[in-house]
Amino acid sequence: MRNFEYYTPTRVIFGKDTHLQVGTLLKEQGCQKVLIHYGGNSAVRSGLLDEIKASLTDAGVDFVTLGGVVPNPRLSKVREGMELCQKEGVDFLLAVGGGSVIDSCKAIGYGIANPWTDVWNFFLKTETPKDCLPIGAVLTIAASGSEMSNSCVITNEDGWLKRGSIKSDLCRPKFAILNPKLTYTLPQYQTESGCVDILMHTMERYFVNFETMEITDSISETLMQTVIYNARILMTEPRNYNARAEIMWAGSLSHNGLTGCGTAGGDWACHQLEHELGGMFDVAHGAGLAALWGSWARYVYQENPERFAQFAANVFDIPCGTDYEKTALAGIEAMEDFFRSVEMPTNLGELGLNLSDEVIHELAFKCSFEDTRTIGGIRQLNRKDMEKIYLMAR
Amino acid sequence: MRNFEYYTPTRVIFGKDTHLQVGTLLKEQGCQKVLIHYGGNSAVRSGLLDEIKASLTDAGVDFVTLGGVVPNPRLSKVREGMELCQKEGVDFLLAVGGGSVIDSCKAIGYGIANPWTDVWNFFLKTETPKDCLPIGAVLTIAASGSEMSNSCVITNEDGWLKRGSIKSDLCRPKFAILNPKLTYTLPQYQTESGCVDILMHTMERYFVNFETMEITDSISETLMQTVIYNARILMTEPRNYNARAEIMWAGSLSHNGLTGCGTAGGDWACHQLEHELGGMFDVAHGAGLAALWGSWARYVYQENPERFAQFAANVFDIPCGTDYEKTALAGIEAMEDFFRSVEMPTNLGELGLNLSDEVIHELAFKCSFEDTRTIGGIRQLNRKDMEKIYLMAR
Repeated sequence: MRNFEYYTPTRVIFGKDTHLQVGTLLKEQGCQKVLIHYGGNSAVRSGLLDEIKASLTDAGVDFVTLGGVVPNPRLSKVREGMELCQKEGVDFLLAVGGGSVIDSCKAIGYGIANPWTDVWNFFLKTETPKDCLPIGAVLTIAASGSEMSNSCVITNEDGWLKRGSIKSDLCRPKFAILNPKLTYTLPQYQTESGCVDILMHTMERYFVNFETMEITDSISETLMQTVIYNARILMTEPRNYNARAEIMWAGSLSHNGLTGCGTAGGDWACHQLEHELGGMFDVAHGAGLAALWGSWARYVYQENPERFAQFAANVFDIPCGTDYEKTALAGIEAMEDFFRSVEMPTNLGELGLNLSDEVIHELAFKCSFEDTRTIGGIRQLNRKDMEKIYLMAR
Repeated sequence: MRNFEYYTPTRVIFGKDTHLQVGTLLKEQGCQKVLIHYGGNSAVRSGLLDEIKASLTDAGVDFVTLGGVVPNPRLSKVREGMELCQKEGVDFLLAVGGGSVIDSCKAIGYGIANPWTDVWNFFLKTETPKDCLPIGAVLTIAASGSEMSNSCVITNEDGWLKRGSIKSDLCRPKFAILNPKLTYTLPQYQTESGCVDILMHTMERYFVNFETMEITDSISETLMQTVIYNARILMTEPRNYNARAEIMWAGSLSHNGLTGCGTAGGDWACHQLEHELGGMFDVAHGAGLAALWGSWARYVYQENPERFAQFAANVFDIPCGTDYEKTALAGIEAMEDFFRSVEMPTNLGELGLNLSDEVIHELAFKCSFEDTRTIGGIRQLNRKDMEKIYLMAR
């Protein structure tokens, strides 16, 4: 059993109408002037942005706004946000949106608080941030877990590189407002893509090659069952409050560190393989993960068939005898069946990508940082392994 | 489904040899001079205190020591600690021990940081603390969950009143060092008493009378199963690292707020009934809880037999048909069977108390704050109800 650290300082305010507390929360944090950062027009159209502004005005908190964050958020928008915040004397960043918006805030926060270097260096991992502007989040998409996490992912348009930041507690939001009703109007594809992302944050920590803690395993397994059960409900009942709430809280718990206690960081190969897809083709993150996972799992499961068999038995109630290989494969198949049941892709073709050998070669080349790194934990994957997995997923 | 807040800012450092990091951690917190607060001589004899001191000296952190905290920690010791800290200019409190020592630190921290009132008022709940000295913990007993919690319990020798403080995030420890090996030498009775306390922190939040979150329920149920399974192992293998680790982490998770998400605070009647026993007769807290729980459960289960049946099915795998009452009672019996299997009492006689009608009347009178309050959530209990439960448990 491995040693671990657990640190989740984000204050979570969960439930109906909680977004109306945002002004008070910012005031409590000593905020003078906040950037309201958001994505497309849905936050405007739904009236959410107006409610947020009214709450801030009531609390006497000054603000500026910057919208236009896109999925797979861009470095150029981060730089735009940094410039605006510096010009306006902003001392707090409020993300109104999902993971893309929160991640854009985190990058802006790093950029402003570390003027001694360029912000992209924290994503190249050549520098370590020493500070970050404080961040709060009003979550509108359950998926990324970024509202409690210590990391963020940004895409640099120069080369279309999608890269995760150095992990640091500095960027964990001070508070996260989780009102499940704010996710009611999310299109089905985004909702289910979010559910896959939540599952993957749990699975990436779960599939390891050494002895784990049974309490962490059990929490992870029960979390996955909750997501699978409620993701199916949301296919027909997108306004089911309880299902939205279960998914939303699962999203935060899956990525705040709880599901990684004793698993020494986990694996994360699937996320890294997907980042190249997201960077080059701008696919929905969760859908990209779904398209790759089965191929990754079949490529690596023989490193620890017992672990995959445990997953099959405890998440999908597949009877497990002594034939771990058979049970393991049945579990992989069951997860792919789930993906299909919520209309998520299980290969790159279903994701809408028709990739040539050359493109796959390029994806693997980029994912391996030009053949200089391996990824993964349960099995270390080099450039050739990556290429094989992309090919299997084609 | 109820709204909730979740806030667990304590940094947990978990695993082998982690206590050797204490000096570095205090230094990171900006500590100049710390009070090392501890209980009996076991921390001295085992060499733990010397290791802590060496770590502090290496880190350049000055310290004073104060031992002698007893189970059901006393207000007089709190006042002694306050005086010492003020005299010595202490700016940080380090608990080396279990819940009693941590709670004593929390009370000292409140006392020093709020000189405008008497510290006992925070336990009478007539005043609200505005600040608290920062606290760290090196845990040596898995039980109370105080290492991550927002509350503490102190016994006032004047009247032998055992009272919980107002709940406040101010007293949550800044860090908690959890090294399961430090619990190896704990006597069996204390170990198992701790396991009961952990179960009770989960159950007190679980048994409520309204719709809950399934993710919280599942986490609570899996946590209880982990404790029950490993508590039994520790009966014969007190130096089983994995079992000690599972119990220790379950102890923190059971009381840091995670198991109460969406259960609106829970019930806590059992804890309050036990506090009177602990105040008057100085019994081990967990053993006192075990002695009362079955009687409490049988007194209240008809308010929500379906909930007790869910508990029976999901924690003890008892088949649940449509007869919720029968399943509920089987679940209560199963928990008492578990208590017996780890040599915990299931009534007050087995706890070593032979109480007269007059004493039981007095217990209920004190627990009801002289007939002025009710306790409990699944069923509100007045003085007469409390008296009946004590009588059932006799």
